[in-house]
Amino acid sequence: MSKFPSEIILRNEHKIVFVVMDGLGGLPLSKDSQTEMETAKTPNLDKLVSENVCGCFDPLLPGITPGSGPAHLSLFGYDALELPVGRGLLAALGIDFTVQADDVCIRVNFCTLDKAGKVTDRRAGRINDEENKRLLKIVREKLIAPKGVEVFLETVSEHRALLVLRSDQLDDDVADTDPQALNVPPLAAKTHAGSQSETTKVVENLLEQFGGILATANSPANFMLLRGFAKTKPMASFEEKWGCKAGAVAGYPMYRGLARLVGMEVVDGATEPAELAKAAGKHLPDFDFLFVHFKYTDKMGENGDFEGKVAQIEAFDAAVPAFAALNASALVITSDHSTPAKLAMHSWHPVPVLIVSDLARPDDVQSFGERAMAHGGLGRQAMMNLMPLVLAHANRLTKFGA
Amino acid sequence: MSKFPSEIILRNEHKIVFVVMDGLGGLPLSKDSQTEMETAKTPNLDKLVSENVCGCFDPLLPGITPGSGPAHLSLFGYDALELPVGRGLLAALGIDFTVQADDVCIRVNFCTLDKAGKVTDRRAGRINDEENKRLLKIVREKLIAPKGVEVFLETVSEHRALLVLRSDQLDDDVADTDPQALNVPPLAAKTHAGSQSETTKVVENLLEQFGGILATANSPANFMLLRGFAKTKPMASFEEKWGCKAGAVAGYPMYRGLARLVGMEVVDGATEPAELAKAAGKHLPDFDFLFVHFKYTDKMGENGDFEGKVAQIEAFDAAVPAFAALNASALVITSDHSTPAKLAMHSWHPVPVLIVSDLARPDDVQSFGERAMAHGGLGRQAMMNLMPLVLAHANRLTKFGA
Repeated sequence: MSKFPSEIILRNEHKIVFVVMDGLGGLPLSKDSQTEMETAKTPNLDKLVSENVCGCFDPLLPGITPGSGPAHLSLFGYDALELPVGRGLLAALGIDFTVQADDVCIRVNFCTLDKAGKVTDRRAGRINDEENKRLLKIVREKLIAPKGVEVFLETVSEHRALLVLRSDQLDDDVADTDPQALNVPPLAAKTHAGSQSETTKVVENLLEQFGGILATANSPANFMLLRGFAKTKPMASFEEKWGCKAGAVAGYPMYRGLARLVGMEVVDGATEPAELAKAAGKHLPDFDFLFVHFKYTDKMGENGDFEGKVAQIEAFDAAVPAFAALNASALVITSDHSTPAKLAMHSWHPVPVLIVSDLARPDDVQSFGERAMAHGGLGRQAMMNLMPLVLAHANRLTKFGA
Repeated sequence: MSKFPSEIILRNEHKIVFVVMDGLGGLPLSKDSQTEMETAKTPNLDKLVSENVCGCFDPLLPGITPGSGPAHLSLFGYDALELPVGRGLLAALGIDFTVQADDVCIRVNFCTLDKAGKVTDRRAGRINDEENKRLLKIVREKLIAPKGVEVFLETVSEHRALLVLRSDQLDDDVADTDPQALNVPPLAAKTHAGSQSETTKVVENLLEQFGGILATANSPANFMLLRGFAKTKPMASFEEKWGCKAGAVAGYPMYRGLARLVGMEVVDGATEPAELAKAAGKHLPDFDFLFVHFKYTDKMGENGDFEGKVAQIEAFDAAVPAFAALNASALVITSDHSTPAKLAMHSWHPVPVLIVSDLARPDDVQSFGERAMAHGGLGRQAMMNLMPLVLAHANRLTKFGA
C-alpha cells in the first residue's frame, strides 16, 4: 500500500471522539443463534448505525488474532505488523510504568535454584505479591547499578516482575535466560545470535548481583529468569502522524500505557460507560482527538460469559446519547479485536466500525451487529485505514493533488 | 500490493469503452434522504446495473480526496500517490498545452511592484484576458531565450499565465518566487533547499528580462510571480502499461491533457451525452480503448446544485442505449471522485463502478446508486485495481502461471 500523504492533514477545530469497546466482536454460541452484539438490545447504537456509515475491519490482516498492543496501534493508524510491541514493553505498559525511548524492558520470573544452581521451580512456588515486593525492596537497596545504567524493578504479581534498564548505550538484542526446563541452570545472557555484547555484559552483572542478594533473603525465590527484552521502536507520535493533539480516557493500565506509547495524554481513569462519557465531555475542549477505552466487553468475553457481555453492551448503549451529545465532528465506535464468549479469548474475526458524522454517506445497515455491519458502506478493510477515514469524516484532510 | 504481471496482457480485437462521469458520487442533503444518483431516474443505467457487475471503489486510499490529476491517473491504472502531478503541469494540461517529457511547467501570476521593487498587488489588479495576451505578446517578442532553452508563455485567464521551459538540462527543483505577502520583494529563484542551480540561474535570467520588458509596457502588471514548478514524472504510457491503443473523447482541457499525459490520442472535444456517444462510435474502430469524459455532473456538484446534478445524471442516462449499442467487449461507467452537491467540492467518498460485459458475473444490485452499488460483486477496492478488472472483462488478459 502506498504511504499516506501526510501533507494533506489539516489542523483545525474539528473534534474526534474515538471509543474502543474492547473485544466487542463475538460469535453465536450455536450456528442458528445470535452473537453478543446481536442479542443485546441497543436502541441508541441502532439509531446511530441507521443514520451513518459502518463496516467490519480486520485488526491486522485477515485471519490474524492480535494482542492488545498491535490491535491498538492499528486502531491508532500504525502498521502494527511492522512495529512489534515486545513483551517486556507490554509488561511495563501493563503496570502503568512510564517508558522512555531508551528503556530496555524485561519480564522477570522469580525462580528457585538448587544448590547446584539448577532450576527446580520456574515460578518459585508462585510467591505472593507481598513476598514479591519484599524481595524487590531488598534487591533495590543492595543493588549497585552498572555505570551509566539506571535500574528499575517493579512488582507485577505473584512471581512476576518488571526490570527496566535505562541507558542510551543498551539494546534489546538479548535472548531469554529462562531455560524453559527444570534441572538445568538458567541460560547466560547472550544476543539472539549467541554472542556477547555491551548489553549482555550488563545483564550478566545484574544477574550475578540478583543471585547474591536473593541468596540471603530467606525465600524460595532465590533467582530471576529474564524474558522478552524489548525497547520501544522509534515511531512518530500520534500528533506528528495525524495532526491531532490526543488525550485518552482509560481506566486499565495496559490501555493507558498504549496511549502514552504514541504520545497521548492520559487524562482520566474512568471505566463505567456514563463516567467515560462524562470524562470525554470534560476533556474534549482540550484536545483534537479523544481516545475512550471501555474494557468490560472484553473482560466478559475473556470470562466466556455470553450474557455478561450482552449486559455490558447494553450498559454501554445507555451512555451512547451522552457521547452523541458531545457533537464531535466525528464520533467513532469500534473495537480493537473480537473476544467471543464462545472462545473466551481474542479472535481474528473482523471488528465492527461505526463512524457518526454529518459527512457520512448513509448505507443500508439498521442495527449494531456483526452480520449487519459487514454490509456497511465502509466495507471490509484493514483497521490501519480507519484513521484516514476518521480524519476525512471530521473534515481534517484536504485534497491530494490538483 | 504486488505488481501487476504485465506478461499476461493480450493484444487482440476486443474493444473497451471507458466512460468517466466526473464527480458522480454524492451525498444525501439530510440523513434520511437520497443522493443525487439515487434521486435521478435512470432506467437505462438501472438495467445495465441489474444485468452486470458493479462496486464502489476508493479513488486513491480510503479517506483521501483526490484532485482531478491523481484521480484520473488512478482510473488509468497508475499509482497516483507515487506519481504526483505538479500544479504547473496541471496548469499546462488545463489549457491544452502539449507537454513534452523534459518540459518544466510553471504557473505565472502577473503582479504589481512599486518603485522600490516591493509587491503591492499579487494579481496586478486582476488584469483581463486581453491585457494578459497583449503583455505576453510583447514579452515573447523581446525575450532572448537562455542558451539551450525554449521558452513558452501562454495566457490562462485574467492575471494567470503559463511558463514552460523546454530543455533537457533543467529540473523542477525550484521553490515558488511568490512571497505570498505584500510590501516585500518577490523571492529570488532558489532550490527547495535554498541554494542555486543551473535551473535557478536560468529562471533568474528570465525574471530579470520579464521585469525589464514589462517596465516599458505601460500596465499595472509589471512583473511575474512564479509558482508550482513541475515536470512530468517518467511513466510508462497507457499503451505500454496495458497493451491498449487508447483514444480520448473529452471537451475540457484538463482531461484532454491528462489523457495526453499517458499517451492517449485526443480525437474529439464533445461534451454533451449524445455527442459523446456519437464520437465514441465514430472513433472506436481506430482504438482498443476509448476514454470518454463527461464533465457536467462534477460541474453541478461543484456549484452545490443538487437538482442540476440529478438532471445531468438523467441526461446522461438518455444516452446510455447509444453507448450500449457500440457493443464493446467491456463498457465501463464510473467516475474519478465524488463531488457531493452538499459539499460543493470533491470528496473522498467511494465511487460507483459499473462494468458491462458478457463476462460479468451478475450480482444482486438493481439500481444505479451509491448505497446499492456498495453491495456489488466487485466490492470495495482501490481504483487502481479497475484497469486489470476491465481488461479481464474485455478478455484481454491470459492466465497467470500454468
